[in-house]
Amino acid sequence: MPNTAEIFAETRRQFILPGAVVYLDGNSLGPLTVAARRRLIDEVDEHWAPKLIRGWNESGWMDLPSAVGDKIAALVGAPSGTVVAADSTSVNLFKVLSAALALRPDRKVVLSDSGNFPTDLYVAQGLIRSLGAGHELRAVDPEDVASAIDESVAVVMLTEVDYRTGRLHSMAELTALAHDAGALIIWDLCHSAGALPVQLQDSRADFAVGCGYKYLNGGPGAPAYTYVRPDLIASCSPALTGWMGHAEPFAFGPGHVPAEGIGRLRCGTPPILAMACLDAALSVWEGIDLQDVREASIKLSALFIEEVEQRCPELMLASPRDPDRRGSHVSFRFPHGYAVMQALIARGVIGDFRAPDMMRFGFTPLYIDESDVLRAVEVLEKVVRERLWDCAEFKARRTVT
Amino acid sequence: MPNTAEIFAETRRQFILPGAVVYLDGNSLGPLTVAARRRLIDEVDEHWAPKLIRGWNESGWMDLPSAVGDKIAALVGAPSGTVVAADSTSVNLFKVLSAALALRPDRKVVLSDSGNFPTDLYVAQGLIRSLGAGHELRAVDPEDVASAIDESVAVVMLTEVDYRTGRLHSMAELTALAHDAGALIIWDLCHSAGALPVQLQDSRADFAVGCGYKYLNGGPGAPAYTYVRPDLIASCSPALTGWMGHAEPFAFGPGHVPAEGIGRLRCGTPPILAMACLDAALSVWEGIDLQDVREASIKLSALFIEEVEQRCPELMLASPRDPDRRGSHVSFRFPHGYAVMQALIARGVIGDFRAPDMMRFGFTPLYIDESDVLRAVEVLEKVVRERLWDCAEFKARRTVT
Repeated sequence: MPNTAEIFAETRRQFILPGAVVYLDGNSLGPLTVAARRRLIDEVDEHWAPKLIRGWNESGWMDLPSAVGDKIAALVGAPSGTVVAADSTSVNLFKVLSAALALRPDRKVVLSDSGNFPTDLYVAQGLIRSLGAGHELRAVDPEDVASAIDESVAVVMLTEVDYRTGRLHSMAELTALAHDAGALIIWDLCHSAGALPVQLQDSRADFAVGCGYKYLNGGPGAPAYTYVRPDLIASCSPALTGWMGHAEPFAFGPGHVPAEGIGRLRCGTPPILAMACLDAALSVWEGIDLQDVREASIKLSALFIEEVEQRCPELMLASPRDPDRRGSHVSFRFPHGYAVMQALIARGVIGDFRAPDMMRFGFTPLYIDESDVLRAVEVLEKVVRERLWDCAEFKARRTVT
Repeated sequence: MPNTAEIFAETRRQFILPGAVVYLDGNSLGPLTVAARRRLIDEVDEHWAPKLIRGWNESGWMDLPSAVGDKIAALVGAPSGTVVAADSTSVNLFKVLSAALALRPDRKVVLSDSGNFPTDLYVAQGLIRSLGAGHELRAVDPEDVASAIDESVAVVMLTEVDYRTGRLHSMAELTALAHDAGALIIWDLCHSAGALPVQLQDSRADFAVGCGYKYLNGGPGAPAYTYVRPDLIASCSPALTGWMGHAEPFAFGPGHVPAEGIGRLRCGTPPILAMACLDAALSVWEGIDLQDVREASIKLSALFIEEVEQRCPELMLASPRDPDRRGSHVSFRFPHGYAVMQALIARGVIGDFRAPDMMRFGFTPLYIDESDVLRAVEVLEKVVRERLWDCAEFKARRTVT
């Protein structure tokens, strides 16, 4: 049996990383893998180009959303046949939120928290506005979610790991509280799938969504995915549906008849090239134990926190200090955080920034090791000590960081 | 000035077509272009891999949906800034149908026709079910649409070119009738964009959607697009929205504030690799006049009809005989149509089949010429004459054809 250092040395070889870069932003966009690159070219040259329309029959395109879904299911504690890859996280959230509200017609409150990723709140706002039937989005502070779950709540809608601070909600505890109050719960796993063991089935979570482009390394804007608890699938009826979610898409019947299984969460024609790319990227996870990933990620982030606090005491830890209460990224606040991050990036240490003052650093053991962490802190200390961030170029904000 | 034969000889060189194949199914899945293949590899090797998260700033990823939208706008008679590429056709239809219904709160009828592509009907059914406020989908026969437009109708929702028969609705006439009755109109352009000149602006159509994978050659499941009439954009408020449709996505504010322009029709993170592939595929259209495409396509389809009717009188023309009343594909009915199509495909003539008995043949002058048409008819005649379709292998139905 190889030890975990050997395992992660091997996974690192599966990534195509630029030289002289420490990439601490896999929590925003995962890097390219050898497998994804090869598969994309193969899908184009061996399937699309020569088979043309026959690819749908002969190249497994029609089943790809389920095949990819099953691979993701294995990473989020879900049984086979409960996850399907499709659309974006926002679109999938709309589907399951509309389905969940339809299952609780007598209740009107969607409960979320202010630490949720904004698009999740926007999706709920758009849906609620269109329903026009007295629904309400109630967003409380993250620490007040548990006490805010009561019998007025139709759906609790949370992101497990906070995109800014990395704060980790307890899926088991909050799911149980939601169920005790007769509510349903939706988990957004964007910042947890691939970062830590997720317990969808064990917690009895009702619905989940997540993206394919962060820890799953599927490429920029990769397809997202949806989970529905097995016993809820048959009664799951999203407002947004389409021919690929039909029991018989190629019967071209006039009325929508939802597919029996998780495929009913599909909508339009799946994006095959992007889906194939994600499918191949997921092969990195074969034989990887997420508990090993979690332990290694905690070691790396603890080391990073310790070193930064010792060498850059001006920076304030924004993430929970207790590793059991955070995901696999760590954030520090600093008034000049934006400019510092630009200076870091210019020196090959890539993290990112979230307004107003938060620098984020992600620790993904599949391709990041202790020497990367030490190198990152060394550059960070130099940037802060020597005020290397203090120039117009680094202070000018751009759209994305 | 090159003549049209020279122009289309040049466009044909831009496609990567398998040898010994006559591809008459570009109306279902367009073929690979040299430009799309090159761009996909470039996006991976020169952008995603080396720039990683910086690609969003440095590689134009954030603006790609608008850039692609503008290229499509030029093909569908729409001004710049009115089309955005995103999601699938079904998802986009949901957005504009929800926005349109919100603009006609006192009316409850969505009028469509039985020749509409089924997913369009399913999308309307799902939305109407979720609204639960007495809305109704009324689907009449295609020839009865004009007379069914009355003042109870909130939204007329039509596909310009029928996916089975190729029957072409009059966009100008039906849009005017809808407006006269105080209704809004949504056009699905899946089978018309890139096949014939579309008059979105001139007809004053309110909304349109379409896919990127047929005549636009963007690849299997390529991103779709949405058009909104310029003066309607500011009041367009879809039920389905997300952070990429926000005025300031990276301000991460708690409330949704829609972007000013067509960007408000975006939702989640755009699929960059698929979007780049479509962007490059659209370069084939540079300098091409859609009127030339239309004339050439009519010549090809008229030749095909004439030859088939002469040589295979068993086949019944299912498309309008008048070229002004059909798009660029032609369908023939034959009781053994499925098996005949399989036999054709086995001999390198690729069309497709739509239940119960319709064989479709698409004529896209960008890569199909008169010799292809004659070759296709020759093979078809042989298959029908010699009953080459009459074997178990060809009769066994598969999911897609």
